[in-house]
Amino acid sequence: MQRRALLTGAGAATLALGAGVKPAAAKAEHRWKMVTTWPKNFPGLGTGANHLAELIGQMSGGRIQVKVYGAGELVPAFEVFDAVSRGTAQMGHGSAYYWKGKSEAAQFFSSVPFGLTGPEMNGWLYHGGGMELWRELYARFGLVPAAAGNTGVQMGGWFNKEIGSVEDLKGLKMRIPGLGGEVLKRAGGTPVSLPGGELFTSLQSGAIDATEWVGPYNDLAFGLYKAAKYYYYPGWHEPGTTLEAMINKEVFEALPDDLQAIVLNACKVVNQDMLAEYAARNPTALQTLLDEHGVELRQYPDEVLLKLRTIANEVVAEIAEKDAFSRKTFASYQKFLTNARDWSAISDLVYLRARDQLEG
Amino acid sequence: MQRRALLTGAGAATLALGAGVKPAAAKAEHRWKMVTTWPKNFPGLGTGANHLAELIGQMSGGRIQVKVYGAGELVPAFEVFDAVSRGTAQMGHGSAYYWKGKSEAAQFFSSVPFGLTGPEMNGWLYHGGGMELWRELYARFGLVPAAAGNTGVQMGGWFNKEIGSVEDLKGLKMRIPGLGGEVLKRAGGTPVSLPGGELFTSLQSGAIDATEWVGPYNDLAFGLYKAAKYYYYPGWHEPGTTLEAMINKEVFEALPDDLQAIVLNACKVVNQDMLAEYAARNPTALQTLLDEHGVELRQYPDEVLLKLRTIANEVVAEIAEKDAFSRKTFASYQKFLTNARDWSAISDLVYLRARDQLEG
Repeated sequence: MQRRALLTGAGAATLALGAGVKPAAAKAEHRWKMVTTWPKNFPGLGTGANHLAELIGQMSGGRIQVKVYGAGELVPAFEVFDAVSRGTAQMGHGSAYYWKGKSEAAQFFSSVPFGLTGPEMNGWLYHGGGMELWRELYARFGLVPAAAGNTGVQMGGWFNKEIGSVEDLKGLKMRIPGLGGEVLKRAGGTPVSLPGGELFTSLQSGAIDATEWVGPYNDLAFGLYKAAKYYYYPGWHEPGTTLEAMINKEVFEALPDDLQAIVLNACKVVNQDMLAEYAARNPTALQTLLDEHGVELRQYPDEVLLKLRTIANEVVAEIAEKDAFSRKTFASYQKFLTNARDWSAISDLVYLRARDQLEG
Repeated sequence: MQRRALLTGAGAATLALGAGVKPAAAKAEHRWKMVTTWPKNFPGLGTGANHLAELIGQMSGGRIQVKVYGAGELVPAFEVFDAVSRGTAQMGHGSAYYWKGKSEAAQFFSSVPFGLTGPEMNGWLYHGGGMELWRELYARFGLVPAAAGNTGVQMGGWFNKEIGSVEDLKGLKMRIPGLGGEVLKRAGGTPVSLPGGELFTSLQSGAIDATEWVGPYNDLAFGLYKAAKYYYYPGWHEPGTTLEAMINKEVFEALPDDLQAIVLNACKVVNQDMLAEYAARNPTALQTLLDEHGVELRQYPDEVLLKLRTIANEVVAEIAEKDAFSRKTFASYQKFLTNARDWSAISDLVYLRARDQLEG
């Protein structure tokens, strides 16, 4: 009876707090931290992480509440993987190629130079065996991975000189992570890996000569046009980069089935929504860059693209030699890519040509 | 006390049923019927509807249980819209262009000849104002719409003669719904609208001369290769068809916030997953059609594509003249399409060319 009175009393006190109390907050069963590799609230990437946290809260009726931390707030950008692995945070948001130090194969789960586009990546991950491989890799580190965002085809980067031939890449110090960086290196350049938040200052100070980042929507937000003149396309090095969510495996497995389903499906929703957001925002941001900031748009010459593609094929194939897991991941990805190329040749490629370029 | 004893008794009886009882079934708060325009379990489309029902069940912990009905099981394919509108079923799965009799503007929410691709459609719907327009239209009929599947770029159709010029389309009786059908009509053909389940018989019996359906994965499943020889590309008439879910508005609005979020986000998950499934299954199905069934692949000649594009632009622009809602939907779609074209020219189109066709 005393216990019952206590409960009634607590209920009355909660009610007395009035309309300002969020009912969801009152019944939170899981309070999670999400650490991210992005600046807090950064358009697309950081807001995508926020969106993921909101969706989990909404669909779970507040049973899981996720607080999002920008890069450096709780841990530095490139310590997200380790922080979630050891349980400092329950969840993280980043992209798998940042963790190539853990396994070279991680890069297949972000983006591969001259590889799959965003929608093709989803085909490989969800219906081509990719997700099973990714889960196998991350399980070694006590993590459950999920695709949770995609940038679509990126831009080729910002330069202060024109790239007329492969010679122009020689000696170039450029921020370009993952496999794209290795391709640049073999073309004679010096790749640098830097978190997004450091790009503008590094480019403006001359610490780097050039940088790629994402595309018009994100590049405009960082003000990269203030530090470089030429904006190159296409983003051969990242044709559809998958962003990731990772959840601490012990934390995930302790959830009941419905909450597990909610967390993983919230990631899928954000995976699609971010690609859709880039499809909507990139075109208008590009117009702003060209019309208001005098950016000069340039296409990589075919000669340069051909050379980079040849190098990229070598670089990607070499990953297969690293270890057994990398070998099978490469084989799975490569098979899917070969099929995707054949299909694109009679679907997306020929359609876009007929819609956008065919002249009477 | 009597009431309490009764409840305890009921609980004991449930437990006594043992392991065969699904706990989810025991706590269902909402039992829904989902009627569909597809044959039950049809690959991609029908299985996508099944997937949607499963996701809603999983994420809600069984609080909503959805039973899926194939075309003709509860109502005929083309009565899905009315059935959900009047509450015969709580939910439906189809595609908006089937309902052009309700409003010409509905067609913008499926696919438009020479219009947006699947990922671009998502950009328009989720971040370009499209979803708000779709909700406004369906609200008139007591429905809440959601994008719940996408086919990607379709194939151009099955023919028993080659299409060398626009002349070859004259007099052709072809199953092709929506705006694509109107384009064919103005090119001299006779468009027919038939549900998928009737295509093979109609083509084989000669009731129609030609048909489009979806793409290799679905066309293989219907055995269309047995009734026609030439398989044309690209699917200029449906470059990324959005499938839809519709929920009876009263039923939806009576749900608590968490279940509303679960239903709408389950639709988003299926929207992405189906596009991914087509990206994975179409290439291998195409190989089967070519290698095992001797199908002859043909590209529409540029002359034909150019003529169809010119007609399509007229047909689509005329919808804007029908009524005020159609006018604003056309304006929104057209603005997005213009921007998407500019962006594709420096992203997807130029990237796919560099990846797949550029030769040294």
